[in-house]
Amino acid sequence: MPKTAITGLLIDLELEANSELPKYRQIADHLRVSIETGRIPAGIKLPSTRIFAEELGVSRNVILQAFDRLIDEGLLSSRIGDGTYVMASVIGKQGGAAPEARTLTAPEPYPFRSLSRRGKSLVNSATDAFPERPTAFMPDLPDLREFPIKTWLRLLNETSGRLRGEILADTSNAGYEPLRRAIARHLNISRGMTCTSDQVIITTGSQQSLDLVSRMLFDPGDPVWLEEPGYVGARSIFSANGASLCPIAVDEQGLCIDEALAKHPSPRLIFASPSRHYPLGATLSLQRRSALIELASRCGAWIVEDDYDHEFRYVGHTPTSIHGLDGGQRTVHLGTFSKILLPSFRLGYVVVPPDLAEPFAKARAVVDRHASLIEQMVLSEFMHRGLLVAHIRRMRNLYRSRQVRLIGGLRDIFDNGLRLSATDTGMHVLIPLDQAADDQTIARKAMDHGVVLRPLSPYYAGRQKRQGLLLGFSAYNFDEIEQGLARLSKLRTMINPVLAVP
Amino acid sequence: MPKTAITGLLIDLELEANSELPKYRQIADHLRVSIETGRIPAGIKLPSTRIFAEELGVSRNVILQAFDRLIDEGLLSSRIGDGTYVMASVIGKQGGAAPEARTLTAPEPYPFRSLSRRGKSLVNSATDAFPERPTAFMPDLPDLREFPIKTWLRLLNETSGRLRGEILADTSNAGYEPLRRAIARHLNISRGMTCTSDQVIITTGSQQSLDLVSRMLFDPGDPVWLEEPGYVGARSIFSANGASLCPIAVDEQGLCIDEALAKHPSPRLIFASPSRHYPLGATLSLQRRSALIELASRCGAWIVEDDYDHEFRYVGHTPTSIHGLDGGQRTVHLGTFSKILLPSFRLGYVVVPPDLAEPFAKARAVVDRHASLIEQMVLSEFMHRGLLVAHIRRMRNLYRSRQVRLIGGLRDIFDNGLRLSATDTGMHVLIPLDQAADDQTIARKAMDHGVVLRPLSPYYAGRQKRQGLLLGFSAYNFDEIEQGLARLSKLRTMINPVLAVP
Repeated sequence: MPKTAITGLLIDLELEANSELPKYRQIADHLRVSIETGRIPAGIKLPSTRIFAEELGVSRNVILQAFDRLIDEGLLSSRIGDGTYVMASVIGKQGGAAPEARTLTAPEPYPFRSLSRRGKSLVNSATDAFPERPTAFMPDLPDLREFPIKTWLRLLNETSGRLRGEILADTSNAGYEPLRRAIARHLNISRGMTCTSDQVIITTGSQQSLDLVSRMLFDPGDPVWLEEPGYVGARSIFSANGASLCPIAVDEQGLCIDEALAKHPSPRLIFASPSRHYPLGATLSLQRRSALIELASRCGAWIVEDDYDHEFRYVGHTPTSIHGLDGGQRTVHLGTFSKILLPSFRLGYVVVPPDLAEPFAKARAVVDRHASLIEQMVLSEFMHRGLLVAHIRRMRNLYRSRQVRLIGGLRDIFDNGLRLSATDTGMHVLIPLDQAADDQTIARKAMDHGVVLRPLSPYYAGRQKRQGLLLGFSAYNFDEIEQGLARLSKLRTMINPVLAVP
Repeated sequence: MPKTAITGLLIDLELEANSELPKYRQIADHLRVSIETGRIPAGIKLPSTRIFAEELGVSRNVILQAFDRLIDEGLLSSRIGDGTYVMASVIGKQGGAAPEARTLTAPEPYPFRSLSRRGKSLVNSATDAFPERPTAFMPDLPDLREFPIKTWLRLLNETSGRLRGEILADTSNAGYEPLRRAIARHLNISRGMTCTSDQVIITTGSQQSLDLVSRMLFDPGDPVWLEEPGYVGARSIFSANGASLCPIAVDEQGLCIDEALAKHPSPRLIFASPSRHYPLGATLSLQRRSALIELASRCGAWIVEDDYDHEFRYVGHTPTSIHGLDGGQRTVHLGTFSKILLPSFRLGYVVVPPDLAEPFAKARAVVDRHASLIEQMVLSEFMHRGLLVAHIRRMRNLYRSRQVRLIGGLRDIFDNGLRLSATDTGMHVLIPLDQAADDQTIARKAMDHGVVLRPLSPYYAGRQKRQGLLLGFSAYNFDEIEQGLARLSKLRTMINPVLAVP
């Protein structure tokens, strides 16, 4: 039986949005009937979760939940690196199974090789990055050549002398206290927050922060709002931790809260990048910030504020963080140093409400003790001496000049029709394309010409994807930008006709 | 109603070891009846899980599972930092509730403040360390003054020049490839293993390794064998991840496998420290290693081999690792650099069976991207130049001389009756005490005298605890050891009478 035939069995399933039954249950019920009646024969390998998810317009996680349920019921079995099979043993239960179905060799259950169910979900939530080379205009990279390596090594030398005393005195699960003080002060000044160092928990970066937040704040099956499009790393980790993902549309004011409430009225957790939506670039309006806080209060939800990239604002002023606006009552605030300093430098932080500081610190120590103390000590010195603020200021000016150069070059290449978005802040600009365009194909062609244009569509979880191209500028000097533009100009005739109409 | 009265209601519950029903279900069923019949009144605060666990002789995790079930059923509510309450709303369900019970103020459910159920379990699994000062004879510390900081900084300077190219080339989720090669080679030579670098996943240390292994290899409720006594950090993280903990006795040959099989016949995962049992010091015999491998194969279990501390062996030869013996088929092998180099240096590794390499690497990237690249690069250089092996050799000789000095001093202080264990390997020796002794009281008195003796009993999860004192020697030079011994000698009259009889 070819894949399409089985997929066909599923297409006639209409998911009911208003059903009491969650989607994975509807899918599991439909599959169960199909298996038990023999419409899907025993022993057969099912199409991948990806195919199911695309066909039904749901996330892969929903399909995984449905599969897991049927695995629990003994109707399906799953092999890592292979796929999901209808168990041979269900033959007896099948009324109308075609005789030839029984001759198919079904894999035996293989308990030793099996990962745990949550392990499989963890593995399956990993998303393959669109293949790229670290050359213009690959986004999300700071300029590594600008990292103040000499200063850093000098501080490291100084700090290592103090290591013995400090290392033994440091018993805080939450991280190195002077660094937590430096971060609290920095946030109070730059982000309008009123947190103390007690509320700051040091992590090894945003991904660990998100994992910790997931485990602490929601249980498997709980509804989690995510921006659509949005940060793929967040989607992965929420999905890996069993969230029921609710993709929420984003417009030029940020998260569309009213629309979201109508569809998914009772979130347990709301993930947002209000300073600068990733990847579209919108800043969440003050009105919507208030609405979000009010909503969280009303339905007892947590807001997780990813303050990623706020440092690089070229136009206007970054609004006070949601954590600052709500007094840190319902908001967990995430920050990272990867984009300011080095991606390979693994330090980030979570700022939690005061009464959650102790539970978070304890949990952090259970899952991973603490981050590298030496790196924490050096960063602490770096911040206390004002070097971080100076570095950010220098990078902001540098990146702004690079953005200006890139935008000028793009206007030279393309028609007057070119409009750009995401230009107020951040490390990339976005060229929106017509819906008829195929951004992934364009990106692949661009790669053949030695220039990186990252497609927008993979940032969408749902079926309604907008097409566009992300161009990073922060990591490239003027020569590299010119070279990238020269390569891009050869693609002019391909891209020009599909630029989005203003 | 005083605590003891409620506890009394539970003591009349006899847990049935052979019941089809898991223990948490038996406890939940018993509690449900007690609540619904009004024997436990509405609104009351329950005693802590610790008290329940001790009374019933089960792990706290079992109690937490029972509580969670009743929270799900709406009979209990839980507040972080406070405790667990019988819901006021069950009053209507209570037949014989005493009238005064209704006048108790019950906490309202407070959804906003609530952590997730797994978050609570994570927090509750954290164990408070016995309070200690970093002075002789605090165990588990390498001598920080011996860390080759000058060499390290030189390598760091050299390496930072290569950072740009390397950092961009490194796309492996599993860690920095040259470091993984160096680790695989080191293990193949020193531990009799046959792994390739593909099987090596770099983590931020043992705790993250254990967390990853837990999530990948067992689901909540699955039975996990743990050494009793054993490493508290492992117990915490397995418990936090929902394991049904099975404490397994340890004798002078290591894990008592036959006894374990009789009590807990079907483990999903077996955690062991075969090179050197922590904290008793036994080396798992070759016969038991074979038995363990055979058992894992038969019941489809995973073996998690913590190879902690094997570097410091003073007598005899460290046997081939279980991963080496079984060809890495059923064994996940854990190592760390914290004890060899610096505790604050956050790098460890997991060596997995070949077919699990890709799933583990993917999962590792989902939960925490990768470890600090700079530290990985420097460690890689350190290993490839043979400096790690040289450092280990130097530390082994140094620590051996310190152990000899400590043992000599102890023999001078105490009667001929003194026997010591755990002396073949590691960073501490153990003074076994008579069962009538109270090691925690002795440890507190010692602290008053400025000397650290770590009690053995907290390493036990169950009620049957052996008494003893751990004395670390690795972090202290001869002067510091003499000073510690001088302080210890003042406790002679207290400790001498309770030394275990040989």
